[in-house]
Amino acid sequence: MNNTFGHRLKVTTFGASHAGEVGIMLEGIPKGIRLTADMFAADLDRRRPSLRGETTRHEADIPTIEGLDTDSRTADTPIRITFRNDNTRTADYSHLASHPRPSHADLVQRRKYGQEYNLAGGGMASGRMTVALVAAGVVAKQIIKDMSFSTRLAEVSGDSNSDHFETIIADVARRGDSVGGVIECRVSGVLPLLGEPFFDSAESVIAHILFSIPAVKGVEFGDGFEGTKRLGSERNDRIIDSEGHTLTNNEGGINGGITNGNDIHLRVAIKPTPSITLAQDTYNFEHKSIEPLTIGGRHDACIARRATVVVEAAVAIALADLYLRTL
Amino acid sequence: MNNTFGHRLKVTTFGASHAGEVGIMLEGIPKGIRLTADMFAADLDRRRPSLRGETTRHEADIPTIEGLDTDSRTADTPIRITFRNDNTRTADYSHLASHPRPSHADLVQRRKYGQEYNLAGGGMASGRMTVALVAAGVVAKQIIKDMSFSTRLAEVSGDSNSDHFETIIADVARRGDSVGGVIECRVSGVLPLLGEPFFDSAESVIAHILFSIPAVKGVEFGDGFEGTKRLGSERNDRIIDSEGHTLTNNEGGINGGITNGNDIHLRVAIKPTPSITLAQDTYNFEHKSIEPLTIGGRHDACIARRATVVVEAAVAIALADLYLRTL
Amino acid sequence: MNNTFGHRLKVTTFGASHAGEVGIMLEGIPKGIRLTADMFAADLDRRRPSLRGETTRHEADIPTIEGLDTDSRTADTPIRITFRNDNTRTADYSHLASHPRPSHADLVQRRKYGQEYNLAGGGMASGRMTVALVAAGVVAKQIIKDMSFSTRLAEVSGDSNSDHFETIIADVARRGDSVGGVIECRVSGVLPLLGEPFFDSAESVIAHILFSIPAVKGVEFGDGFEGTKRLGSERNDRIIDSEGHTLTNNEGGINGGITNGNDIHLRVAIKPTPSITLAQDTYNFEHKSIEPLTIGGRHDACIARRATVVVEAAVAIALADLYLRTL
Amino acid sequence: MNNTFGHRLKVTTFGASHAGEVGIMLEGIPKGIRLTADMFAADLDRRRPSLRGETTRHEADIPTIEGLDTDSRTADTPIRITFRNDNTRTADYSHLASHPRPSHADLVQRRKYGQEYNLAGGGMASGRMTVALVAAGVVAKQIIKDMSFSTRLAEVSGDSNSDHFETIIADVARRGDSVGGVIECRVSGVLPLLGEPFFDSAESVIAHILFSIPAVKGVEFGDGFEGTKRLGSERNDRIIDSEGHTLTNNEGGINGGITNGNDIHLRVAIKPTPSITLAQDTYNFEHKSIEPLTIGGRHDACIARRATVVVEAAVAIALADLYLRTL
Repeated sequence: MNNTFGHRLKVTTFGASHAGEVGIMLEGIPKGIRLTADMFAADLDRRRPSLRGETTRHEADIPTIEGLDTDSRTADTPIRITFRNDNTRTADYSHLASHPRPSHADLVQRRKYGQEYNLAGGGMASGRMTVALVAAGVVAKQIIKDMSFSTRLAEVSGDSNSDHFETIIADVARRGDSVGGVIECRVSGVLPLLGEPFFDSAESVIAHILFSIPAVKGVEFGDGFEGTKRLGSERNDRIIDSEGHTLTNNEGGINGGITNGNDIHLRVAIKPTPSITLAQDTYNFEHKSIEPLTIGGRHDACIARRATVVVEAAVAIALADLYLRTL
Repeated sequence: MNNTFGHRLKVTTFGASHAGEVGIMLEGIPKGIRLTADMFAADLDRRRPSLRGETTRHEADIPTIEGLDTDSRTADTPIRITFRNDNTRTADYSHLASHPRPSHADLVQRRKYGQEYNLAGGGMASGRMTVALVAAGVVAKQIIKDMSFSTRLAEVSGDSNSDHFETIIADVARRGDSVGGVIECRVSGVLPLLGEPFFDSAESVIAHILFSIPAVKGVEFGDGFEGTKRLGSERNDRIIDSEGHTLTNNEGGINGGITNGNDIHLRVAIKPTPSITLAQDTYNFEHKSIEPLTIGGRHDACIARRATVVVEAAVAIALADLYLRTL
Repeated sequence: MNNTFGHRLKVTTFGASHAGEVGIMLEGIPKGIRLTADMFAADLDRRRPSLRGETTRHEADIPTIEGLDTDSRTADTPIRITFRNDNTRTADYSHLASHPRPSHADLVQRRKYGQEYNLAGGGMASGRMTVALVAAGVVAKQIIKDMSFSTRLAEVSGDSNSDHFETIIADVARRGDSVGGVIECRVSGVLPLLGEPFFDSAESVIAHILFSIPAVKGVEFGDGFEGTKRLGSERNDRIIDSEGHTLTNNEGGINGGITNGNDIHLRVAIKPTPSITLAQDTYNFEHKSIEPLTIGGRHDACIARRATVVVEAAVAIALADLYLRTL
Repeated sequence: MNNTFGHRLKVTTFGASHAGEVGIMLEGIPKGIRLTADMFAADLDRRRPSLRGETTRHEADIPTIEGLDTDSRTADTPIRITFRNDNTRTADYSHLASHPRPSHADLVQRRKYGQEYNLAGGGMASGRMTVALVAAGVVAKQIIKDMSFSTRLAEVSGDSNSDHFETIIADVARRGDSVGGVIECRVSGVLPLLGEPFFDSAESVIAHILFSIPAVKGVEFGDGFEGTKRLGSERNDRIIDSEGHTLTNNEGGINGGITNGNDIHLRVAIKPTPSITLAQDTYNFEHKSIEPLTIGGRHDACIARRATVVVEAAVAIALADLYLRTL
């Protein structure tokens, strides 16, 4: 099992949803970056449940940072950021061992890691792990300070009118159902020449970490799938100046795997949360028959809003890694 | 620069489009797998240009395989597969140094690797590199023999009627333009429990290598972007038997990053080829002005058909790597 | 900074001598291995200071093990083993910032990690880190259960009569001085064919981790340096049966980088501890002059006895990694 | 099988002793380093057999370098250096399949890679592979230009009078026997702060690659095994100035795994070549009995002189990798 991402900025997750803690180790951070707990507050807050239809599991999410010097600066040594899990209710998950949730990791995780393994709350595939990713993203953004991120929920349940999002999610939650969404991330101030021409294309590295985020089922850069319908003559991004700026940006800022200095633009498909309270007919392994499953526990009817900052963190980590490779 | 993909099955590319050769080293292949040149013929043939609108650069594409024992079997040592580049016309590319193609890697590669580096034919970001990937895919399929692949061109220029594909491509080529397409890959007989719950989710590993393929701008699994529009209650894949088969397969055979034994299903967006013969107004770095560029050389008006087997090879390599991790 | 050793059994250290804890993460342990705190007691005890002349810093060294299933078994997921640092006296080290100890890491660590970094007790290069290595060694031995280890202090201060060792160390300690020693490790029941013919020869992998142990300045296999004085005809290990047993074992059980099934035999040079209480004339960076340094803190006059189990753990980790590569 | 060494400067070997070629790929070389075939001549020449008692297999050893730009400079892309094997006599090795050489890799390699694998000339564990290492060393020295190397044969058959070396080797060769030796390497102008406090100590990284060289059975730094006999008070290297120079250099220029700016000093034990023409009683696997073996082929009665430049290359590669990690 590989828990590490990155070549120069290496991040390694540890812990699990219902273990004592979750956390992340970061190796390769340049020396002298100041990191204080308050720098993490804004991004951690964006990930916190706040709307109707989002989980009622609340965690304080106070990062403990180890490995800094006495001036709170990185010192060419690894740092570790840890979060306590205080608000777990493992009992909520016990019946899922024999009656696994549809479209959820319950069954495969149980088969892969054994009946005796604590998979409550999703174990290592839990959304809980993403609190650590957000923290690593905060550090990554300090490494690529000139890049700025604008990440937003672009669609909920196929609707792109953001005024409707809260209502849609609240309605769906009331019915015991769930919906998905599309997240858009735009990065400005991107250094050109990040990424490599083959296996570690910028798209490869970014997509790799994005698809680690639970619930992500699609990633596209620039005009992505839509662009396949167009002619080269109308889609090609004409270069308009000596810095390589382009008239359009259908490539999403990446050519041949390498950033071209224009904004990076990407979209991420977030599936409807599999945990719904509506009954679902699915196989019960104890009873050896198909039976209605009603899921308890505390879940999000739509995870896409909370995932926005997670997507942003993932992109930041990937870009920081690619940036450090060019030094 | 990282030219290696994979943890257990490691593949490393070498060479370039207009160098003497391109090739791939494979490490971690199980012992005793028989490999003969004729086993590569069918897949290499699928990648070969054959339709009107596809490049007129023809290469023999005969693999030279080194590192086998005298019985042509793998022996727990690395093997190398090499292809000669015989049909290069480097002169076709000389003017692109100062007048780089829109939406192409010309400009970023030149800036990254220097004016003196031979980037003719796309250098290391060239589609030429994919001949090596196809060869590695043939080996990968021998490692995961029980899995079978069905990969097809599903859309060309937004049209999903395959009877039209040849006509569309020929028409577009005649006009000096280009189009993109969507490739669908379905894998049957997938072993369950491949992939990991976080950074190396099956989607992450597969998407990583897919986005290495030049021209890929989007990857989705199962119902992907379309699935974001649905309700959890209608999209969740109900489990129907003790083996974990599901009634529907909207997840594309992967839950929480781990294969569930159902078919893997994915779609790949291939952008319109950037090299078109229609004139494009784009920046000329020598003249310091925007000027019409007419591209010579030998190019594909649509690379999507030829890329079908490349996508299949990439998926096979990723799955073979994930499979070997479970041994 | 790379804190990870191993390809299949990957061990990653964290923490530091005077941080809250030190520990080690292990990835790649086969499934189903039972691990309980009491299994670590014997080896941890061997590392504990007990003789006159050994440090008076005493730590409880109770391992906390995370990542096991409810039956205390490994589950194809990483585990983490952590030790609290309870008995630290950071003040003892404050003057070493300006007056670094001869033959010690004080100066280079301070220059590499900065004046603000907590290097008390040796920081990450401290012998304290080896408690984590010993714990990882206990796990490694469970992976290679058929191999048995016999590791002993073979020389102290050049004397090979073990009856003298305690007296020599106590005498030297009384004088405020220190001595080194030689550790011999013999492994029986070694599986043949571990190791690789070039970069990851069994010697390379074992020596790599052995030289991580603070105070190790030499490693030799079989007859090592002594063997260079002999003729091939008298030194070559004649094979005497179909299993590959040899009449002599001057190679130390490894040919061409690969174990041959005979016992592995190696020797490790442990230098005299640099921290002595006798005054030493050495440079004071604050006073810009050479001045006598008297070292306080709690140190070992000879670390070689306590290092015996650390050497054994390191060899076990290396062999477990090589063994897992052959599966 | 892992054929790669290094984190930042990654070198990967390919080919085998009696294959068409041997070679090495280098990744991570800084941009703009000029490399021409003549730069390799001096070091390759030092490795060439020239004395009585050294092998009569002569290879032209002309490096073919791929991946440079048109000005023969590195361009942030991998380079490959290849050597043809022209002078092979595979037939010389055929009887060794059933009657393997004592103290040689014959038996373990055959068992590991199979009867059908071409292991003539030592296969991948052959000294032939070191021609590629020497070439990589030449490149490494260009990366760490300020460091200079002084590497010499310090002992032959236990004798340290270099005037005797030629005579000893010639005598031993005449008798059909072999001898070993000790190589000393001293590096001046070493940048301080290379290496890390734990797993990748400078000693670990250097020893790892040194033990890859066939015939190496021991490595020691500074006063190594001899130093274990001394008192701390007489062995500790007093610091004498603000740059960290020391009065003595018993540590061999490395403290706590990190270079301290003084010369690196190390010694390497080279065993007597196992291939001797004197008959040896050893097991014949075909006849199932112990029988005298007489070894043909072309071998060195002492490999230590030719290994001098190989040791130097290995140290240079390790230091270049450690240096690049600090950028």
